[in-house]
Amino acid sequence: MYSITVSHHFMIAHSLVGAVFGPAQQMHGATYVVEAELRRDTLDIGRALDLLKTVLAEFDYRNLDEVAEFRGRNTTTEFLAGEVHKRLAQRVREGALGSQAIASLRVLLRENPVAWAAYDAPLG
Amino acid sequence: MYSITVSHHFMIAHSLVGAVFGPAQQMHGATYVVEAELRRDTLDIGRALDLLKTVLAEFDYRNLDEVAEFRGRNTTTEFLAGEVHKRLAQRVREGALGSQAIASLRVLLRENPVAWAAYDAPLG
Amino acid sequence: MYSITVSHHFMIAHSLVGAVFGPAQQMHGATYVVEAELRRDTLDIGRALDLLKTVLAEFDYRNLDEVAEFRGRNTTTEFLAGEVHKRLAQRVREGALGSQAIASLRVLLRENPVAWAAYDAPLG
Amino acid sequence: MYSITVSHHFMIAHSLVGAVFGPAQQMHGATYVVEAELRRDTLDIGRALDLLKTVLAEFDYRNLDEVAEFRGRNTTTEFLAGEVHKRLAQRVREGALGSQAIASLRVLLRENPVAWAAYDAPLG
Amino acid sequence: MYSITVSHHFMIAHSLVGAVFGPAQQMHGATYVVEAELRRDTLDIGRALDLLKTVLAEFDYRNLDEVAEFRGRNTTTEFLAGEVHKRLAQRVREGALGSQAIASLRVLLRENPVAWAAYDAPLG
Amino acid sequence: MYSITVSHHFMIAHSLVGAVFGPAQQMHGATYVVEAELRRDTLDIGRALDLLKTVLAEFDYRNLDEVAEFRGRNTTTEFLAGEVHKRLAQRVREGALGSQAIASLRVLLRENPVAWAAYDAPLG
Repeated sequence: MYSITVSHHFMIAHSLVGAVFGPAQQMHGATYVVEAELRRDTLDIGRALDLLKTVLAEFDYRNLDEVAEFRGRNTTTEFLAGEVHKRLAQRVREGALGSQAIASLRVLLRENPVAWAAYDAPLG
Repeated sequence: MYSITVSHHFMIAHSLVGAVFGPAQQMHGATYVVEAELRRDTLDIGRALDLLKTVLAEFDYRNLDEVAEFRGRNTTTEFLAGEVHKRLAQRVREGALGSQAIASLRVLLRENPVAWAAYDAPLG
Repeated sequence: MYSITVSHHFMIAHSLVGAVFGPAQQMHGATYVVEAELRRDTLDIGRALDLLKTVLAEFDYRNLDEVAEFRGRNTTTEFLAGEVHKRLAQRVREGALGSQAIASLRVLLRENPVAWAAYDAPLG
Repeated sequence: MYSITVSHHFMIAHSLVGAVFGPAQQMHGATYVVEAELRRDTLDIGRALDLLKTVLAEFDYRNLDEVAEFRGRNTTTEFLAGEVHKRLAQRVREGALGSQAIASLRVLLRENPVAWAAYDAPLG
Repeated sequence: MYSITVSHHFMIAHSLVGAVFGPAQQMHGATYVVEAELRRDTLDIGRALDLLKTVLAEFDYRNLDEVAEFRGRNTTTEFLAGEVHKRLAQRVREGALGSQAIASLRVLLRENPVAWAAYDAPLG
Repeated sequence: MYSITVSHHFMIAHSLVGAVFGPAQQMHGATYVVEAELRRDTLDIGRALDLLKTVLAEFDYRNLDEVAEFRGRNTTTEFLAGEVHKRLAQRVREGALGSQAIASLRVLLRENPVAWAAYDAPLG
C-alpha cells in the first residue's frame, strides 16, 4: 500500500530497426528521465536513489547499438523500461535495499515532454 | 505490464449547470492537457501520439455548450476524461493502432496545476 | 537585484477576431497559469501571492468577449499579460504591498505546455 | 473507474531517528507537495481541493518533532503520506464530500524533485 | 516589453571532444527541449511555434557528429542554443513571421532536469 | 550572451521573526530547489553542477536558526538566494570553474509550486 519513487536520468545514443520507426531508424539519442516506484511499507529513500543511480550509470553516455547485450534488439523506450526494471529487480533480490521484501516495482522512462513508457511487475 | 503514455492538449469554452459549480456556471474555459496511457507490450509511440492528436482535434477550439452530443450534459473534467477515453477506445478497436490488442486505457485531463481527473477502463 | 515570483491561475472563455487566428476565432477558452515577478529587495511573498489572487479573480470564470473593458480588443495571451500587469501595477502603486518601491514587474501567462507570453515593464 | 486528483502543499520542520537516516537525523525541513487522488464517478473538484487544504493546514508551518500525536514516530515521507491519508479518509467518512461513496484514495507526497512517496488504500 | 515563447523538442546523438567532457566523449545522445522567446509587441504564437518546429526538424533524429556544418565543433548544449538561435534569426529576417520587427530572441535548451543552456541576442 | 543553468536542492528548518510572517514565525522548513544561471560563453555544465552541489551541501539538512552566520537575520527565500549567490560567486572568483570570467550570476530558489525568489548580480 505504501510506495516510494526515486528519479534520475541518463543520456544515450541509439537507432531503431524497422520502417515503422521512420526517422528514428537513423542514429539519434535521448535523455531518459527515469522514475522507479518501489511498493513496500518502509523504505530508505536515499538508498533507493543511490541504487537507481548505480543502475542507470550502466547506460549513461552509451551508444546502445554497441551494447553486446542489446545486439539484435530494438532499444525502444518500453524495452528500456523493462531492462532497467530487470536490473533493479536483480539488485533488490541480491539485497541492495536490505532484507526488506519489495512487493512490486514500476519503472517509467520519460523520453520527451509528450511521450513516456513504463514497465510494472511484481518482484517475486 | 508495459504501457506507453502520450500527451497533447486542447482548449475549450463551456459552462456547468448546477449551484454546486459556483462561478463555473458562467461561460468560461480551460486548457486541458491530456495524457493517454495505453497498456500493452509493444506499441508505436509516434502512432499513438498521432491518434491522440486526431481525437483531441475534435474538441480543440470548441464551445462545448454548443456540441450537440453533449446537450444536457455537464462537461466536467471527469466527464471529458470519459469522452476522450470513449473516442480513443473506438479508434483503437477500428484498428488505428494496428492489429495489436490493447489491454486497457487510462485518460487523464489536467485542468490546472492543482486539479486533474482521469478515467481508466479495460478495452474489451 | 532581488526578485520574488508568485504564481496562480485563472480559467476563461474568449474568441479572437481575424483570419490569422484560424480556429481560435471560434468561442473557446484557456487555463492561464500566471507568474508575477516583482523586482525589489525585501518583499512579503505571502502578501504578493494574495494580491495576485485578488487580481486574477477579476478574470476567473469569465467570458472575456463579454467584459466591457475589452470590447473591440483581441484578448490574446500577450494582451492579457499586459492587462494583468496593468492591474497589479495599479494596486502596488496604491499601496497593496506596503510602502516598498517595486522597481519593475514581469507578468507571464502560460497558455498551454508549448506556448506562453509575458509583459515586462518598470513600475514608475 | 473515474478519479479526481487535487494538489496542495505544506512546509514543516522535523528530524529523523536512526543512523540509517544519516544527515536527516539533524533538525531540517521540507516542502511537501501533496496529490490526493479520489476514486469515484462524480466528484466536486473544488470541494475536494478545499478539503485537502483544510487537512494540510494541520501540518503547515509546524515542527513535527513537537506534534504530540507523532511523539516517538519517525515522520518519514511515506509515514506522512499515510497520516494525510488517514485524516482525509476520516473527513470523507464524516461527509466532507457529501454522501458520495469514495472507493479508494491515494495520497502522494513529493519531497523534492527526485523523491516522493505515496499511500494507497480503499476507503471502507 | 512583450514577449512570446514557444517550445518544442528534438532528439539527437553526438559525442564531445576533450578530456574535460569525461564520459560525454563517448557517442551518446540527448532529448533537447527548446524554448524560443521572441521579444516584440504583437506576435502570432501559432506561427512562431510552426517556425520553431521547422527549424528543429533540421536537427531531429540526427547524429550531429555527421552533420557537415558541425565538423570540428563540439556540439555542446550552449553551442546548439546558439545554432538554433542563428537559424531562427535568419528565418525571421527572411520574413517567416511576417514584416514584424523582432527586437531580440532568447533560445534555451533543456538537456536534462538539472542542466540547461541559453543564447540571447538582439535580432539586428 | 550565453548562459548555462544548473539545478539542485536542499532541505532546511528555520523560523522567521516578525508579525508580518504570520505562521512562518513557528519553526518549520522547506525544500529549496535552486537554479544557478551563469552567464558566459563556454562553460562546463558538469563542473558547474558539482560546484552548486558543494555549496548547497553547506545548507542541506540544517536548522538555519542555529547557523552562527545567520544569527539575527531572517532567512527568507530572497535572503537565502543572496547567500547562495555570495558563496557561488566567491568560489568562482577562487577559480572553482577555471580561469574563465563569468559576467554575471542569477540564483533562484523555488520554495513551493507557487512562490520563488532570485538574486541577480554581476560577478566583479
